[in-house]
Amino acid sequence: MAKKIGFCFGVKRAIELAYQTLEKSKSENSPLVFTLGPIVHNPQVVRQLEKDGIITINDLKEIKKGYLLIRTHGVPPLVLSDAENKGLTIIDATCPLVQRIHKIVTNLKKENYQIIIIGHKDHPEVVGIAGYAGKDHQVIEKIEDLEKIKLDKKLGIVGQTTLFIDNFQKIVLNLIEKAYECRIYNTICFETQARQKATLDLAKEVDLMLVVGGKNSSNTKRLLEICKELNTPVYLIEGAKDLKFSWFNLKKKIGLTAGASTPIRITQEVLKKIKNNK
Amino acid sequence: MAKKIGFCFGVKRAIELAYQTLEKSKSENSPLVFTLGPIVHNPQVVRQLEKDGIITINDLKEIKKGYLLIRTHGVPPLVLSDAENKGLTIIDATCPLVQRIHKIVTNLKKENYQIIIIGHKDHPEVVGIAGYAGKDHQVIEKIEDLEKIKLDKKLGIVGQTTLFIDNFQKIVLNLIEKAYECRIYNTICFETQARQKATLDLAKEVDLMLVVGGKNSSNTKRLLEICKELNTPVYLIEGAKDLKFSWFNLKKKIGLTAGASTPIRITQEVLKKIKNNK
Repeated sequence: MAKKIGFCFGVKRAIELAYQTLEKSKSENSPLVFTLGPIVHNPQVVRQLEKDGIITINDLKEIKKGYLLIRTHGVPPLVLSDAENKGLTIIDATCPLVQRIHKIVTNLKKENYQIIIIGHKDHPEVVGIAGYAGKDHQVIEKIEDLEKIKLDKKLGIVGQTTLFIDNFQKIVLNLIEKAYECRIYNTICFETQARQKATLDLAKEVDLMLVVGGKNSSNTKRLLEICKELNTPVYLIEGAKDLKFSWFNLKKKIGLTAGASTPIRITQEVLKKIKNNK
Repeated sequence: MAKKIGFCFGVKRAIELAYQTLEKSKSENSPLVFTLGPIVHNPQVVRQLEKDGIITINDLKEIKKGYLLIRTHGVPPLVLSDAENKGLTIIDATCPLVQRIHKIVTNLKKENYQIIIIGHKDHPEVVGIAGYAGKDHQVIEKIEDLEKIKLDKKLGIVGQTTLFIDNFQKIVLNLIEKAYECRIYNTICFETQARQKATLDLAKEVDLMLVVGGKNSSNTKRLLEICKELNTPVYLIEGAKDLKFSWFNLKKKIGLTAGASTPIRITQEVLKKIKNNK
């Protein structure tokens, strides 16, 4: 088992907020509770929340009133104002570390820095941050992206919370060479870093790694990449049902790690199934 | 010959200021003209200036009145105020790129950043910058220095103008990991970078490199290091008199490069001596 598994504090907070909102709704003649997109990137968690009464929508146009839970990844400010204008009651479950990035970017923008977001362009966290970053912002995913973009003299640089620090640093290095001033905020989440380190340590010691988590979860995919880079055979599974025992042929030591939005119960079920079948 | 040799614009400007000051002094009942430490790190240039009437001192206590030329490397602000209080007439030949660092550091200090200077602790340029950097500043020369120092959350980072960009970047990488915010100014001089690149390109093609320049010149020493890292045999010479023809045994191609304060005449003398002895 990796030394760091279970919900990160941002996920824990979001799920607590979701259930608090459901309770509140029940005591208030039951207005509906929505999330715009999945509140976290874990299918079991989202399914459970849906069972308990939270409705996932994809567009604000689908709804007229009720509570709107903002997902952990955050949203662009335009979405917040649209929701307010509609009269929805907003419950902001944006991870505090992502909120911090929104604040940093807002301040840097005021001081006329061009905002550079290092991260995955289509990921909802990056889309949210980009909403605060002004028209001239740029999203950089890999070194090659640097060739295509126009840089100002003064850059304000932030990273998606779930990046590898190495990738963040490599891109920053290139930016330092090109700009007069780089104002860099290391916004990579400490929980992400701890999980990456625990996974790296474990993957070095075992013959096979299993990463438990959502296939759409950015932090989970990073854990997968860490194992691949070490050439440790690895599978990403969403739960015990995805296990294939043929994977374990000739393997002596199996390592288990999990994303920040994977319930610890799911990881324990995987562990149990492996043990019982041995 | 390396593609970039001869004085950099900062050295050119300083020498022009020195001769203008000498002219002015002659028209004004000849007050003495001093520099505190060598105005540039090249012995021939300094010797010529001394012949022409400029006196190098090591401490302001040695003098009472006259013109004080500030060296290209700059001085701490305390030295400037001491000189003003003594009633000396200050002619500031500090390289404009170093003056820029003084301004950056002053502004960062006002905004409560801890100043990190990447450079050589005892080099006069770094001593000058440190004078603007507040009590809690740190000078970092190599990665290992990072272990010994206490870092704040908000770092304002500048580099000595004559550093290798790679060294600057490596240290910056480490700082990004440790701090909440790094405000980084790439203060490495464009002329230094051009000379380093020209030297690197040449050193790859030849069997032996000669670097012409002052042994106390930081930018010259970097050129030497570039050749050494490529495993190209290399000698640092101050002029034609230092040449040893035994170095050329079995060598077919000899490369010639020079520091930013080496007069082009000195480099040409070296070239001539090599050619004539062939």
